[in-house]
Amino acid sequence: MKKTLAVDMDEVIADPVKKMRSWYERDYGIWLSDEQIHGKDMKEAVPPEQSYIFHEYLNTPGFFRDLDVLPGAQDVLEKLNREYDLFIVSAAMEFPNSLKDKFDWLADHFPFITWHQICLCGSKSLVQTDILVDDRIRNFSRFYGRKILFAAHHNVFVKGYEKAIGWEGVASLLL
Amino acid sequence: MKKTLAVDMDEVIADPVKKMRSWYERDYGIWLSDEQIHGKDMKEAVPPEQSYIFHEYLNTPGFFRDLDVLPGAQDVLEKLNREYDLFIVSAAMEFPNSLKDKFDWLADHFPFITWHQICLCGSKSLVQTDILVDDRIRNFSRFYGRKILFAAHHNVFVKGYEKAIGWEGVASLLL
Repeated sequence: MKKTLAVDMDEVIADPVKKMRSWYERDYGIWLSDEQIHGKDMKEAVPPEQSYIFHEYLNTPGFFRDLDVLPGAQDVLEKLNREYDLFIVSAAMEFPNSLKDKFDWLADHFPFITWHQICLCGSKSLVQTDILVDDRIRNFSRFYGRKILFAAHHNVFVKGYEKAIGWEGVASLLL
Repeated sequence: MKKTLAVDMDEVIADPVKKMRSWYERDYGIWLSDEQIHGKDMKEAVPPEQSYIFHEYLNTPGFFRDLDVLPGAQDVLEKLNREYDLFIVSAAMEFPNSLKDKFDWLADHFPFITWHQICLCGSKSLVQTDILVDDRIRNFSRFYGRKILFAAHHNVFVKGYEKAIGWEGVASLLL
């Protein structure tokens, strides 16, 4: 039997950060630099009175519909989809306007992933697979399988986890 | 630590069957009787050339938005929500137009259930909790916890499972 593999969406296969920066520049006139977001969540990289804005962006209908795909995600996921029982698992429920957008985005960019393989949840604590690839260690807290931390700007200082740098990194760990 | 409990939506807390019958009557002039759907899926209860129609109904935007709540679900779930780590888990991904409707319906009728507790998936095979209440035994096939079959018109002939008749039945098993 194939191993089960769950893969996160945002900042793992989809790039919401570029769009958050772009909308933030539109609204506040500042492009947040790599240095400014290094080791931080987006909301920690701006003055406290502006931190609410990212939640608004993420719940705007359409925000997730046309995100860029992170480099290598399509090729590697297509291979992983043959070797593993693959699921895409996104903690999307905080942003209910994103649900259909995420479904349609996956259909556009990952046509080999069927609806059977998609899971949009609130907490990932009820999801158990053999392996989970995720950029947030909070999603590992109740996960019993192999945890692979996907490197992102906000987790550069997080230690103690098996870490994958980009999709080449995932491929070298799992293919 | 509280036990984790997953509860299905359709035909467990929500009543899509009444609406399917109502729309079928609108389109074909026949109200499907209890006898006609006894022990059958809806699509098996109609002539083969009409069986596609239920899939169309279920993917119509709005179909799930105003379903009736099944009797007792609100009271018992509110109690279960205090005693268990409760999740609502619906294999909704086959009908992507239902996602936001299901979220909004839950907010209307089960305001004590937060977005953290909702999971809309394709297959339930990646969900593992201590207990699962569901009307479809296919959702038990890869589930390791305690399986409680919620009685529905289509599963009257299904044997070999712990069965709950309505929400009184669930309450007597879990409260």
